[in-house]
Amino acid sequence: MMLWAPPGLGEVRPGDDLAVLIGDLLAADADRTGDALAEGDVVVVTSKIVSKAEGRVVRAADREQAITDETVRVVATRERPDGLPPLRIVENRLGLVMAAAGVDASNTPDGTVLLLPEDPDATARSVRAALRARYGLDRLGVVVTDTAGRPWREGVTDIAIGAAGLMVLDDLRGGTDSHGRPISVTVTAVADEIAAASELVRGKATGRAVAVVRGVGRFVLGGDDGAGPGARRLARTGPDDLFREGSAEAYARGLADGRG
Amino acid sequence: MMLWAPPGLGEVRPGDDLAVLIGDLLAADADRTGDALAEGDVVVVTSKIVSKAEGRVVRAADREQAITDETVRVVATRERPDGLPPLRIVENRLGLVMAAAGVDASNTPDGTVLLLPEDPDATARSVRAALRARYGLDRLGVVVTDTAGRPWREGVTDIAIGAAGLMVLDDLRGGTDSHGRPISVTVTAVADEIAAASELVRGKATGRAVAVVRGVGRFVLGGDDGAGPGARRLARTGPDDLFREGSAEAYARGLADGRG
Repeated sequence: MMLWAPPGLGEVRPGDDLAVLIGDLLAADADRTGDALAEGDVVVVTSKIVSKAEGRVVRAADREQAITDETVRVVATRERPDGLPPLRIVENRLGLVMAAAGVDASNTPDGTVLLLPEDPDATARSVRAALRARYGLDRLGVVVTDTAGRPWREGVTDIAIGAAGLMVLDDLRGGTDSHGRPISVTVTAVADEIAAASELVRGKATGRAVAVVRGVGRFVLGGDDGAGPGARRLARTGPDDLFREGSAEAYARGLADGRG
Repeated sequence: MMLWAPPGLGEVRPGDDLAVLIGDLLAADADRTGDALAEGDVVVVTSKIVSKAEGRVVRAADREQAITDETVRVVATRERPDGLPPLRIVENRLGLVMAAAGVDASNTPDGTVLLLPEDPDATARSVRAALRARYGLDRLGVVVTDTAGRPWREGVTDIAIGAAGLMVLDDLRGGTDSHGRPISVTVTAVADEIAAASELVRGKATGRAVAVVRGVGRFVLGGDDGAGPGARRLARTGPDDLFREGSAEAYARGLADGRG
């Protein structure tokens, strides 16, 4: 498995055709390195450049309102010092549970914040279609990533918020392990592992927004209709999530109900 | 960045010297491929073979007791059908919040289950020391991985439960973004991203337990004392975790308190 992040994309502006920009970037990289996009490759793109191409910039003064607008359900809140409004961890309209709904204040011009893309699965499908056509490829995957925190773990990792041409989950149930016994519970979040791997070559500080992952072709789908389930499939929402509500919020609700 | 998983480790048995087994595996692989372990590489090892070498096998009939023994604190439980005991999501003695405390029933002989390693950071340090000496290397990282579920996301990914010779967190605070503004909140869980990436080349079904990751040398530490903070640093426990307690558990506690 091999991963690389071509330099030189430059600033993405509202209205830019992302598939053309990415295609040009990969073409220039191939001229330089000899490594052209190939069958079974996965192209990984940060949500940030998708959002920028879509013009999803709002004034920073409207940040709290923007978070509210992106919110389907508040999961937990945490008070912050210095008079800042509480940090809200919410389920957003993409089904993602994220701090500040995924509204981002880094790597944007002063006085602005960036919303998540409108529909990252749709973007992944359209970028995939354009790159398949331009490079004459059949099996090609596209992943759109964003950075997210996790309960119980320090630090953030990248996850897949959009995907096309990819089995986002590797469902091993029905297979057998090395002792010949059925594997009963393991469904691997392949798209999230690809997103995390790609972060290591892109890096936060370098500003490289595109990576190519080669060597995961067994998860990559071909065909005009082979876009696959999309990353929406990875978002688990609904009543069977054991951490649907923050501990303090659930306790407070119980306390109020108990007092009648 | 390049990752590969040498085949041919074979079954690991209690008392095996893991550093010797891994060293032999990498030597045989280098003979075959010409790719010898090099400065700045990270060797990734599954917890499963660490546990097997440590003889951490218990009878399956004792599984529930084994989970209890590994538990520091129950975080949430979920009822299961068919008379199975409830699934317990707990914080274990390594500070990891995991279903069944990380006790594993796959890829073990019938009638047995496998506990997590005694001290995966210590194992990572000793494997690192042995491989540094054997290969005459200075900067070398070792990561011990396990597979874990996540709230709000479908599917499992690999995380780092042991590490040595590695900056497990890439703390960008104090750096600047591409607009020259301070990066204020991003601390990347590098060791978890390396663990996730390695899973893509190891795979659950193939039984490959060792991978080499090349191209992340900027996170790899040298020196006899350069073992780094270990993966324990990535486990977030304590009162400031907003999801310290399952939603249903917190609600029930509030309800009881409210009723007085």
